[in-house]
Amino acid sequence: MSDRSGVIPSYTPPEFRRPKLAAAPAAKVVPAPADGVLPENFHATSNHPEYVHLGGGEWLLAPESRMDCVIVLSGRRLEVVEPRLVKKGDQVLVGRTENGEEGIYLHIGGFLNLSEPFADKFSFRSRGTRETPFSRSYDELYQVLRHDRDHGYIVWVLGPAVAFDMDSRNAMQGLFEAGYCHALLAGNALATHDLEAAHFRTGLGQNIYTQAIMPMGHYNHLDIINQARMAGGIPQLIDKLRLDDGVMCACARKGIPYVLAGSIRDDGPLPGVIQDAYQAQDAMRVHARKATTVLAIATQLHSIAFGNMVPSYRVEADGSVRPVYFYVVDMTEFSVDKLANRGSAQAVGLLTNAQDFVVNLWNHLKKQG
Amino acid sequence: MSDRSGVIPSYTPPEFRRPKLAAAPAAKVVPAPADGVLPENFHATSNHPEYVHLGGGEWLLAPESRMDCVIVLSGRRLEVVEPRLVKKGDQVLVGRTENGEEGIYLHIGGFLNLSEPFADKFSFRSRGTRETPFSRSYDELYQVLRHDRDHGYIVWVLGPAVAFDMDSRNAMQGLFEAGYCHALLAGNALATHDLEAAHFRTGLGQNIYTQAIMPMGHYNHLDIINQARMAGGIPQLIDKLRLDDGVMCACARKGIPYVLAGSIRDDGPLPGVIQDAYQAQDAMRVHARKATTVLAIATQLHSIAFGNMVPSYRVEADGSVRPVYFYVVDMTEFSVDKLANRGSAQAVGLLTNAQDFVVNLWNHLKKQG
Amino acid sequence: MSDRSGVIPSYTPPEFRRPKLAAAPAAKVVPAPADGVLPENFHATSNHPEYVHLGGGEWLLAPESRMDCVIVLSGRRLEVVEPRLVKKGDQVLVGRTENGEEGIYLHIGGFLNLSEPFADKFSFRSRGTRETPFSRSYDELYQVLRHDRDHGYIVWVLGPAVAFDMDSRNAMQGLFEAGYCHALLAGNALATHDLEAAHFRTGLGQNIYTQAIMPMGHYNHLDIINQARMAGGIPQLIDKLRLDDGVMCACARKGIPYVLAGSIRDDGPLPGVIQDAYQAQDAMRVHARKATTVLAIATQLHSIAFGNMVPSYRVEADGSVRPVYFYVVDMTEFSVDKLANRGSAQAVGLLTNAQDFVVNLWNHLKKQG
Amino acid sequence: MSDRSGVIPSYTPPEFRRPKLAAAPAAKVVPAPADGVLPENFHATSNHPEYVHLGGGEWLLAPESRMDCVIVLSGRRLEVVEPRLVKKGDQVLVGRTENGEEGIYLHIGGFLNLSEPFADKFSFRSRGTRETPFSRSYDELYQVLRHDRDHGYIVWVLGPAVAFDMDSRNAMQGLFEAGYCHALLAGNALATHDLEAAHFRTGLGQNIYTQAIMPMGHYNHLDIINQARMAGGIPQLIDKLRLDDGVMCACARKGIPYVLAGSIRDDGPLPGVIQDAYQAQDAMRVHARKATTVLAIATQLHSIAFGNMVPSYRVEADGSVRPVYFYVVDMTEFSVDKLANRGSAQAVGLLTNAQDFVVNLWNHLKKQG
Repeated sequence: MSDRSGVIPSYTPPEFRRPKLAAAPAAKVVPAPADGVLPENFHATSNHPEYVHLGGGEWLLAPESRMDCVIVLSGRRLEVVEPRLVKKGDQVLVGRTENGEEGIYLHIGGFLNLSEPFADKFSFRSRGTRETPFSRSYDELYQVLRHDRDHGYIVWVLGPAVAFDMDSRNAMQGLFEAGYCHALLAGNALATHDLEAAHFRTGLGQNIYTQAIMPMGHYNHLDIINQARMAGGIPQLIDKLRLDDGVMCACARKGIPYVLAGSIRDDGPLPGVIQDAYQAQDAMRVHARKATTVLAIATQLHSIAFGNMVPSYRVEADGSVRPVYFYVVDMTEFSVDKLANRGSAQAVGLLTNAQDFVVNLWNHLKKQG
Repeated sequence: MSDRSGVIPSYTPPEFRRPKLAAAPAAKVVPAPADGVLPENFHATSNHPEYVHLGGGEWLLAPESRMDCVIVLSGRRLEVVEPRLVKKGDQVLVGRTENGEEGIYLHIGGFLNLSEPFADKFSFRSRGTRETPFSRSYDELYQVLRHDRDHGYIVWVLGPAVAFDMDSRNAMQGLFEAGYCHALLAGNALATHDLEAAHFRTGLGQNIYTQAIMPMGHYNHLDIINQARMAGGIPQLIDKLRLDDGVMCACARKGIPYVLAGSIRDDGPLPGVIQDAYQAQDAMRVHARKATTVLAIATQLHSIAFGNMVPSYRVEADGSVRPVYFYVVDMTEFSVDKLANRGSAQAVGLLTNAQDFVVNLWNHLKKQG
Repeated sequence: MSDRSGVIPSYTPPEFRRPKLAAAPAAKVVPAPADGVLPENFHATSNHPEYVHLGGGEWLLAPESRMDCVIVLSGRRLEVVEPRLVKKGDQVLVGRTENGEEGIYLHIGGFLNLSEPFADKFSFRSRGTRETPFSRSYDELYQVLRHDRDHGYIVWVLGPAVAFDMDSRNAMQGLFEAGYCHALLAGNALATHDLEAAHFRTGLGQNIYTQAIMPMGHYNHLDIINQARMAGGIPQLIDKLRLDDGVMCACARKGIPYVLAGSIRDDGPLPGVIQDAYQAQDAMRVHARKATTVLAIATQLHSIAFGNMVPSYRVEADGSVRPVYFYVVDMTEFSVDKLANRGSAQAVGLLTNAQDFVVNLWNHLKKQG
Repeated sequence: MSDRSGVIPSYTPPEFRRPKLAAAPAAKVVPAPADGVLPENFHATSNHPEYVHLGGGEWLLAPESRMDCVIVLSGRRLEVVEPRLVKKGDQVLVGRTENGEEGIYLHIGGFLNLSEPFADKFSFRSRGTRETPFSRSYDELYQVLRHDRDHGYIVWVLGPAVAFDMDSRNAMQGLFEAGYCHALLAGNALATHDLEAAHFRTGLGQNIYTQAIMPMGHYNHLDIINQARMAGGIPQLIDKLRLDDGVMCACARKGIPYVLAGSIRDDGPLPGVIQDAYQAQDAMRVHARKATTVLAIATQLHSIAFGNMVPSYRVEADGSVRPVYFYVVDMTEFSVDKLANRGSAQAVGLLTNAQDFVVNLWNHLKKQG
């Protein structure tokens, strides 16, 4: 574990010797009646730390949790599983209280009970509006990203907007090449328009610098998709056309893994896009399990999808627990609140334009090395 | 064909004897080099009527067109095909002009060159904002729906918002049972929350009338999904729980076909949800081919997806051509404009709350029979 | 006082015999040092009931309160006064606690401690989003308006949007003529465009039914303003041009008082518009003192201005206390929340289109008489 | 006149020798029938260059024009006057055509008929959305501001949002002190919250850096207003409290003139706020006559008000004509479009957060000196 003093707050586990918890029964499990079917009274997880009492004072923290899943007990190991992936006979945790009385304890304040000045510094604050002062949120974001570049796992969740503008594409490339991205989650559109820009300098046919609508430009994204399908893949396309800049090229050059999830809005799709929505979820969850910081930008669909998968905490290899940061960048309070209301309570909303956001972020981070 | 005088405008085909078109060459086709790969210079369709010159003055109208697809010539028949569905060797139309010089003619004004008062009455107007006067758009919508209930094919594209409110659920049920719906397109969320409401009277745990947040209500949608999975399907769930009201029950009772497209945001999913995004597109396209009026409400994802699939015209069994109406109901100009910018130029945006919209629509239509 | 059982909740005053309040000192006052200048430590009002202890157990409720004003003690009478209207030597209440310890007691829960089912029925609920179920809010609004038409004082605060559409202008006229309006607050624009529509059938030059942009239509609002200035007033204009429909004609016909507050955006202005912002505040406050229900529609400026002036309660002639209802109709959560955050905590936000809102409201109210 | 080559496009006047214009009659004037009342058929101005034919081939350009005003001929001088300021007997231009046939000629393309590459570089582009690529707009803005700092007149129109955040207040101060502001237009709220921040480090009681809601913080803006009223003015307040940072202090230190226009939403107001809406318009118009670049940020009210007053061109002392740049920064397309629809066709909308915008702008400008 890295030295996190001053950047990442430490975690205080529950006091299991408190009378109420000391007297808690062991949690109960019931076998799943069929594949993908849960027993009655199943317990659903949140994205906060939940402890399960196995009896005799042994409480286990569910690792790699997420919203609206179930806990399967396997020997003395807990696994947080999507209901559709539960197998007949899996031992599924039941009980809907979270205060210990059924052996389940939800621990909300683990990162909050710090002495000053940390309590103030790291406290989660209320969600903002476009008029909220974001200076400190930005300062913290810079700190967190610098820390997690080397000692964490930064996941970007991107809508296509960042590919429509020259400066923001350059900034994304800079950020990715400087090590600030460990995984990219997006849809067919982001990849398509980024590759369109790499080849044609347009996004949906509009020049990404001059804003000029190019003649026949509406063919550009169809042509790039067709060329990618002909080439057999995005890496092959990049080679064949000698594409060099933008998001997808940065991923290729730096070996950054990406998940492109298909949707019913897609043209194409590009080869490599995952067609099945739930296979795409599984591929995204792989990164949710590792994430320490998430930047979800200008995509309500992918932001909420990934927000549902990401816990508010992460158990490190050494057993220590740290918070997971989740930043949502969007233009409307409605989109940001929707994510928070779906359960990602730790999400920090930054109400601004996606292109400006990434340009500023990169200007700031590159300056200070 | 029904008597449409006074409601549905008639269509004026192009004047192929005009010198420019009379001199047009036959269009060219090139075989597709591989499955799902297009020949260079392929011609992409819009959602407007396009005519292809087969030579000798024989011009064919591409039937059942849509945005961003290609035209495959098969004998003397034209088919508008998604690029991913093109097979190796298919004869794909090439050429990117639309004025006849390569044998392809895009005909925009077919519904506009009417004598007064029809020209005014049926002209497509500019897109609106929240301050646009919508009185006449509503009056036309009422007329069109009354006509198309019996003589057309009305497709609803629904986001979950309409299921969150008692009055709007009742209105949807009323509209569907009165014959104003021939197909429903939605996602897992609409069906889930509608069934949640049918069983628990809540939407995401909030009472759909009193707005009260119910204790443990956040389990409701997970429970209804689990019960559906246990029952083996939505129809079985409806039977087993004796559900009786709302959108999905109305579909069941009236035999209205529906397509539920999966997405990465889904919990569950419910049985019957189509997992693969492109199989879902194919299922939606079936209804796009038949649609005469579309109401797309409170869902940017599904609205744009279906908007890309729906032509602005429909060729009836008797060969006559009529317009396809596409209404988008949303709260933001951005969402409505985005659909229009993606090519559904005929889309009429109604900027309002989805729940209000359906309540008012039903109040109006039921009153006048 | 009217019989309000079943519609308007009753009020429970504080228990002044509780030890904490029984032991409270008399409140202190300090004379204002100059006209429009407050003494240090002045007490600022909220829009909730506040009681002031005059000593000896005599607690007075500040009548006709509002946000961010001060309480002036005059003999044994309390008056809630805008700071700019305080005169040198006025006895201004000081103290910033609200729990009695300085003789000031803020009473929040007066309308909430009712026995079931009233507690539930009348409880103020949380603010909504566009996806909130509004069925019950509408049902309550209908009830409240029917009650207050005869036994209350209904104030409409209108932006110009309702004048841009034929159906909504007709609905406004219907509502006003049926007695559902006791005062209208608006700006120059609402009156201008309503009179423009009465004379030219346009709003900013666009036909209010067909949406057609009329040739030279951008002169229409300038012409109607010029004619009003020539005529010497809005009533004279109505006579001279024999205007007959819409909002301003309904006011004229029914003798409904209105306040038109000038703003820096105005063309003209129309005669009768109040030029001075603070004279306009004073004119609006006259109606704030009487209001029992407020409908603030499609105007952030006027909604927040009036929201700051309206108390959450009203003391009737017989000394009884009732709630004041405040409905805000707007398209964005941001606008609605902004009002609530500025202190009008009782505001119920209805997220929808202003035109639809008034059309539906009138359809509903006229049907049931 | 400065050397503007490469930054500010030059202007091509109309070809008055073209037959249509050569044959134009002299324009007609009619005396105003009363103070503030216009003759029938009055001509209303736009914000584009309009030429008036005095006869004999003498065409005069209306200087310092604006939307929706009239042209008064005084000797051989044209003045663009607000209708309310017209005096009885003023010679008011009449005629509603703009192609010369009544001696009035509207000249739209004066800045567009340039040879390449200028035509492209300086062409006004279509309005944007949140997904528009703004890279080039920013680059142009930087150039224009650097030029106009020394050779133009830069007017800022500010909503209160920029005062709510530490970084954006610092950036505003930096920009103003570096010479990038020649006049500030705002309301009571901007000044109040900026002074609140200077004294209390809060905006509406919330810490402008930490976001913490301060105890009793809702008194802060009332206290600062009261202190300003006691001190007798904003300059006196700054002296007395030794305020040192933010927008108002920068204005005081650099002698930047400001207009604070009162509104019905105001608390206070601060001394110096103009109470009368139309006196405020007159004070704003003084700066509209001089403006070469306008930055209107996060205020729909003031942006539209000033947008109505600012011409799209400015006649320099040497008779040369240059464009006036008008940038609108807002979070919603609706607000930006509304300004454009009210006639400020040259307005460039930048869809982003106001705080980010000014921070980035200052980061960029200070870097390059």
